[in-house]
Amino acid sequence: MDFNKYSSKVLSGIRFIVTYSLFYPEEKAIQLAKAICVEETVEFPAQLLPKNSYWQNMVGVLEKFERKEKDCFTTIISYPIEAMSPDIVQLLNVIYGNISMIEKIRVERVDLPDEILSYFKGPRFGIEGLRHLTNVYDRPLLCTAIKPMGLTSEDLAQMAFDCACGGIDIIKDDHGLTDQTLAPYCERVSRCAEAVIRANRESGENCLYAPNVTAPAEKILERAIFAKRAGAQALMIIPSLVGWDVVRMLSENSEIGLPILCHPSFNGVYFTSKISGFSAFFMYGQLIRLAGGDASFFPNFIGRFASTTKQDCQDIIMSTKIPMGNIKPIFPGPGGGNTLETIPKSINLYKKDVIYIMGGGLHLGKSLIDSCKQFRKYIESQK
Amino acid sequence: MDFNKYSSKVLSGIRFIVTYSLFYPEEKAIQLAKAICVEETVEFPAQLLPKNSYWQNMVGVLEKFERKEKDCFTTIISYPIEAMSPDIVQLLNVIYGNISMIEKIRVERVDLPDEILSYFKGPRFGIEGLRHLTNVYDRPLLCTAIKPMGLTSEDLAQMAFDCACGGIDIIKDDHGLTDQTLAPYCERVSRCAEAVIRANRESGENCLYAPNVTAPAEKILERAIFAKRAGAQALMIIPSLVGWDVVRMLSENSEIGLPILCHPSFNGVYFTSKISGFSAFFMYGQLIRLAGGDASFFPNFIGRFASTTKQDCQDIIMSTKIPMGNIKPIFPGPGGGNTLETIPKSINLYKKDVIYIMGGGLHLGKSLIDSCKQFRKYIESQK
Repeated sequence: MDFNKYSSKVLSGIRFIVTYSLFYPEEKAIQLAKAICVEETVEFPAQLLPKNSYWQNMVGVLEKFERKEKDCFTTIISYPIEAMSPDIVQLLNVIYGNISMIEKIRVERVDLPDEILSYFKGPRFGIEGLRHLTNVYDRPLLCTAIKPMGLTSEDLAQMAFDCACGGIDIIKDDHGLTDQTLAPYCERVSRCAEAVIRANRESGENCLYAPNVTAPAEKILERAIFAKRAGAQALMIIPSLVGWDVVRMLSENSEIGLPILCHPSFNGVYFTSKISGFSAFFMYGQLIRLAGGDASFFPNFIGRFASTTKQDCQDIIMSTKIPMGNIKPIFPGPGGGNTLETIPKSINLYKKDVIYIMGGGLHLGKSLIDSCKQFRKYIESQK
Repeated sequence: MDFNKYSSKVLSGIRFIVTYSLFYPEEKAIQLAKAICVEETVEFPAQLLPKNSYWQNMVGVLEKFERKEKDCFTTIISYPIEAMSPDIVQLLNVIYGNISMIEKIRVERVDLPDEILSYFKGPRFGIEGLRHLTNVYDRPLLCTAIKPMGLTSEDLAQMAFDCACGGIDIIKDDHGLTDQTLAPYCERVSRCAEAVIRANRESGENCLYAPNVTAPAEKILERAIFAKRAGAQALMIIPSLVGWDVVRMLSENSEIGLPILCHPSFNGVYFTSKISGFSAFFMYGQLIRLAGGDASFFPNFIGRFASTTKQDCQDIIMSTKIPMGNIKPIFPGPGGGNTLETIPKSINLYKKDVIYIMGGGLHLGKSLIDSCKQFRKYIESQK
């Protein structure tokens, strides 16, 4: 192959920027930084490509390399738009595709120019849209999950009804509920949607029911449309189980037109090691927004997962809101073990624009409905 | 909610088994083992569930807990089929959903009884089917990738033609090629498929061209069908970017009816730490087979990724072949930096049933076609 004949070709010059942390001693880190530029683009012996501007721009360009701390180097690489399709699938493939197979490389953040951001519609609702739907403008939103797996659809619906009457704003399926025989999808979703609509009629509030549409590939859209027709007012999905682009597909679909809540199940491994995968900032903020999620659920720094620090949660708050072209800010949704006792410790951090998730914690008191009311009362008292 | 009223309900008794390694000191490990049983099923305060057989079987049951080495405990948990849908999405959600957010838990292997395996069709072709399609029965298969990203469709097709004439059995798109303007999907796939068909006519061989159908959600099936009609003889997909169930969707689709090759891009993070995520045995063998992949590509123990050991590769060889009900054995496909110099070091390990992938390595010699011939000649000489 005569690679020289490409010397007259010109790339657009539009590039996007990825900030990595490389957790290696300096010499190894700089070698790796250069290798990433090649690995994530041409994936080809670099010495075989001519030193002309076409090939030099086709690969990643090392824009900055500096010591952050001992054995950790901040590495900023720009990639050409020509490496993308552009869509979220290929974006992820370029920023962390093959190099996912090399330890101790972490994606800290991604910066896309407007020319690329314009290909991403982002969330349909975002913070403003979800506030409009719930009719709650001046306080955090309250969310719970109906569970445990093992209950009948009838009991799950009763639970949804109680939570809605108790003042919860968003009731999601527990992430483990799909289409099991104990509470089959269509039966459960019909009953729960009906229960929440009935509760809203009684309470005058706008509680949203969000069924879990995580499912086999061909069934996701089908279930989402079923949910919409059954009266569900939102959807929940586990992006890393079904592919991140499914969030966009659901979000863009105008027949559905519902907010999409993103659950972190199965994706923790990208995040927990703190030295490989993704930063909290990228994972639970930027990525969810690019994909089109309206709320990003993640393990709170207080809770049973113990995999985020307070700083991680601060980073998530920031990345759910920082300007990103036409892409709306979204709700951070800390969960994973919140109780009426622990929520006060989170209040100062999250302020107003947050969805607090309390699942099992609401069942620890005398009655579910009382716990919901207590949760709501506490949050309202903090205004 | 009166959980006692479920005491008369009975579960099927069909359970599947997951073997985890927990990398913690004993006391913490046993606590965690018990927590996993709850977290991955009911995700509910365990003390609130009555001690009757319904609820005791709804959760995971700790079947075995034993010290493997210092601060590492083998933990075997059985889960009820009722926790599954049963499909690969919910299987992954149960075995490593929320606990992906807890470090130092590794899934070693999964054992499904025949009652559950019967829901999984597995690969359409497997080793026998791919040998039939390529008409190669007595030696390893040879695979390469057309690249670098940045070439025109015309040049990529010429490269595919040369590789097919040089005796390569499977020519895949490089995993970074999708639908970029430089070599748009339909144009590239049409040209490359035509080139490989033409080469086969000249050589009398049955080289397969496998375009990369990793794409935005709605486009995957569309592209796969386009590829089939254009004459492609196989497909490549990156499961962790599009969701593991997409492999099944492609594999089962009778209009397509092509072998599915699974690329490890983006999934390395589940594997590289060796203490979180998945073992090589589960990740690159069992999981790919359950999903329906016919070949599992992964980083070879010799190569530029340095993220698998020889033992990992041995484990992959075993798990691509061990009996799994009706699910066929598949080809392991070591890649990531093989060259004509390094392949001899792999020969004794992989024996006959393997697909060797050599990408950039084939471009290091005088001419591409000569390198392909040399690769083929070497492999044939080892019979």
